[in-house]
Amino acid sequence: MGSKYPPSMQCFLPLWTLVLEVALIVIFFFFTSYDTSSQDPKKLMETYRVLQDVTIMVALGFGFINSSLRRYGWSSVAFNLFLLALVVQWAVLLDGFLEQLSPKKVVIKLSSIKLATMSAMSVLISAGAVLGKTNLVQLVLMALVEVTAFDVMRMIQRKYFLKDNHVNMMHIHVFAAYFGLMVAWRFRRPLHERVMEKDQTAKSSSLFGMLGTLFLWIFWPSFNSALLLDSPNERKNAMFNTYYALAVSAVTAISVSSLAHPQGKINMNHIHNAVLAGGVAVGASCYLISSPWLAMVLGLTAGLISTGGALCLPFPHLAVGF
Amino acid sequence: MGSKYPPSMQCFLPLWTLVLEVALIVIFFFFTSYDTSSQDPKKLMETYRVLQDVTIMVALGFGFINSSLRRYGWSSVAFNLFLLALVVQWAVLLDGFLEQLSPKKVVIKLSSIKLATMSAMSVLISAGAVLGKTNLVQLVLMALVEVTAFDVMRMIQRKYFLKDNHVNMMHIHVFAAYFGLMVAWRFRRPLHERVMEKDQTAKSSSLFGMLGTLFLWIFWPSFNSALLLDSPNERKNAMFNTYYALAVSAVTAISVSSLAHPQGKINMNHIHNAVLAGGVAVGASCYLISSPWLAMVLGLTAGLISTGGALCLPFPHLAVGF
Amino acid sequence: MGSKYPPSMQCFLPLWTLVLEVALIVIFFFFTSYDTSSQDPKKLMETYRVLQDVTIMVALGFGFINSSLRRYGWSSVAFNLFLLALVVQWAVLLDGFLEQLSPKKVVIKLSSIKLATMSAMSVLISAGAVLGKTNLVQLVLMALVEVTAFDVMRMIQRKYFLKDNHVNMMHIHVFAAYFGLMVAWRFRRPLHERVMEKDQTAKSSSLFGMLGTLFLWIFWPSFNSALLLDSPNERKNAMFNTYYALAVSAVTAISVSSLAHPQGKINMNHIHNAVLAGGVAVGASCYLISSPWLAMVLGLTAGLISTGGALCLPFPHLAVGF
Repeated sequence: MGSKYPPSMQCFLPLWTLVLEVALIVIFFFFTSYDTSSQDPKKLMETYRVLQDVTIMVALGFGFINSSLRRYGWSSVAFNLFLLALVVQWAVLLDGFLEQLSPKKVVIKLSSIKLATMSAMSVLISAGAVLGKTNLVQLVLMALVEVTAFDVMRMIQRKYFLKDNHVNMMHIHVFAAYFGLMVAWRFRRPLHERVMEKDQTAKSSSLFGMLGTLFLWIFWPSFNSALLLDSPNERKNAMFNTYYALAVSAVTAISVSSLAHPQGKINMNHIHNAVLAGGVAVGASCYLISSPWLAMVLGLTAGLISTGGALCLPFPHLAVGF
Repeated sequence: MGSKYPPSMQCFLPLWTLVLEVALIVIFFFFTSYDTSSQDPKKLMETYRVLQDVTIMVALGFGFINSSLRRYGWSSVAFNLFLLALVVQWAVLLDGFLEQLSPKKVVIKLSSIKLATMSAMSVLISAGAVLGKTNLVQLVLMALVEVTAFDVMRMIQRKYFLKDNHVNMMHIHVFAAYFGLMVAWRFRRPLHERVMEKDQTAKSSSLFGMLGTLFLWIFWPSFNSALLLDSPNERKNAMFNTYYALAVSAVTAISVSSLAHPQGKINMNHIHNAVLAGGVAVGASCYLISSPWLAMVLGLTAGLISTGGALCLPFPHLAVGF
Repeated sequence: MGSKYPPSMQCFLPLWTLVLEVALIVIFFFFTSYDTSSQDPKKLMETYRVLQDVTIMVALGFGFINSSLRRYGWSSVAFNLFLLALVVQWAVLLDGFLEQLSPKKVVIKLSSIKLATMSAMSVLISAGAVLGKTNLVQLVLMALVEVTAFDVMRMIQRKYFLKDNHVNMMHIHVFAAYFGLMVAWRFRRPLHERVMEKDQTAKSSSLFGMLGTLFLWIFWPSFNSALLLDSPNERKNAMFNTYYALAVSAVTAISVSSLAHPQGKINMNHIHNAVLAGGVAVGASCYLISSPWLAMVLGLTAGLISTGGALCLPFPHLAVGF
């Protein structure tokens, strides 16, 4: 990303990731196998659809939400894909080892990839806070450390606190926000002097930011209900409540954003944040809420707080975690 | 959207919508509850997928189809989302009250949200005709009035003319076109003098217009078959015929558009219109047509009329309704 | 596409395609009918979802992947849609006639349209090689000849070599690459002198290129498993292996691309190619591979070869076929 790095540095990242990739292949060779049990074809397709939804959220949604920052553009989308593709491979292994805690082979199912993609989202949330503050080697390192920490935390919650996958996954936003803030604080001296400029929004690519926002908005109910497989009623409630919270937080954020601007204009970042905040607010409890008004109140609160927060906080993408 | 409004006006919209949102929450609190009957998980997922398709059409398709107008860009996508999120909440309530005509609680199902999203589309079609001619308060008011009128009309058709949901929903395009034209005629004096400029297409964002068009093209068969749940054969026919009509109208419109231009160039608006027109032309009758050639003839006619119409009519987005 | 053509030429394309379209309608009138057998509604929806995925890949993926070339922009997306809509109609007929080899009516099923859309992809792959080298009449002619040749080749494989639909469809990439190269070689004198400029990437639309790439990346597992309907286990393996090959080839290509650039920057075309190459590499054999590491090795190889190849070969979009 510029000619300031010494040449050795520039070779370091690609060589390091290539070595990492080969190492992953070797680990997969010795320690994994596909799930060969015969499966209900309808369940298979349903899991595949949910995996697809989560992938759309992560690759298209998070990819394009940061692309509206000036000087990022397509390379932020490319690094988003890079981190996603790398972290999912690592997270599948990690989940398998932590789940079994035995020297046997890890059996890979479609739902393992779904879970790994959801874990990978933590990295992509945090990456928003450190863009322009780290180089790529540091980013890859951060990704591997973060997803490992997150998966260990989830394993502990599952084994010792007996919380199910849905509940421990929904801590992802808080975890990713604190982790990202911590890393951003550690690297608080920017690499470039022109970094402030980077936080500004490029006009021509705001539409791409909206594209990412809409993909998140549309597929968030899939994300919040992805791990509630046992009870169709819980699943239905999760979809309903997420939908209502998102609808109300979008309306609220656009209104408040317009109210805060001296000429009544809307700030696109407020919409991004509100969409994220609405989905996060009902995340953990979405399957327990039994009336739409409660989800709507949560959405309203999330919209108000995230838009208010964005007016003060330096890392708007992280504000949603609190 | 500029600094011409008096300050009071700028506060009015956000405050008004916030009050409206709180009022909606209160109504939901007293008058609604979720459907708690146990449900077939496969039917649930199928309804969810169709809801997702309709939401993609409305949020991404209609959002980006107007974004190619100069001076609109991302804010048109944002207002599209704003109107969608607001109107769906209102339409769910309205559908529930009109369906039951009783003082009991409205039971919200996933299919209620699907129906409400489809009703909300009428607002977004009409909004294309009045962009740049109304301010946002008027737009929100128009949205609430229009969806109320449309839902009352649908209720009357259902109760007194015994037409099923599919048939009365497919009047949406005609209704929205006339409603939009009426509003545009009422506000025919533009707010800004530079409004003519707004109708021109910004070169750099034509790709976003194509993006919206493609989302409509791909998901239109889902829309036309969304309410034909009772008979798989009717549903299949609706998908088939919509697909064929869209294919032929796209080919026709691109050919005719090229023919009409002195240098053989294609006008993007003609493609937009043809895509809409092809889907609209087979909308109401798509489940009755039993041979592909008939759908193809309808597509050919729709492509010819919409491209021809766009060369004369001032509101190309509405031409499709006729 | 410019004022250089004589006027007769400009009328020729639209009139020719209109005549073609009318001819297609007449053929459909005499020789086709819909499948009227009653169908399992769940199978119907599943086929529809797969058709939707393939259409998203072809219309959005291939549409936007070429849009990043300077001077193409939205018109490449529009011609992509044009070719898709035209070729699918022709391919449905062709498949039907070649399948039955009898004078009876062609029965059109949803899966016929799915198969035709997949065949149409061959045209859109080849079109990437001849952009800027042919005029539109030649492009339409090429499309019809190519899909006919491809379908005849598939029929021969099916009838005489007893290869099933999945295997003979997966030759699409090799076939389309050679066909495109042949046509490009025939028309190697560019139409415009400024054509070299066309191959350069326009900065502002690189994000659209990434959008197309991501749609291909996300929906490629659907494509590779679309014709494996008989065995859920084969289908699952196809999804798994395609996913792993794509993940590894994306990581590899981004690393190698960065390594090859003197300042460590990434070339977007390398990512495009790697995504295509990863999916192609496991295409034919994806249902046979029984361990993730094998798919990952194929992905690694595909990423290395495609990125290496793109540094030398003139037609990067075709390199993936080899």
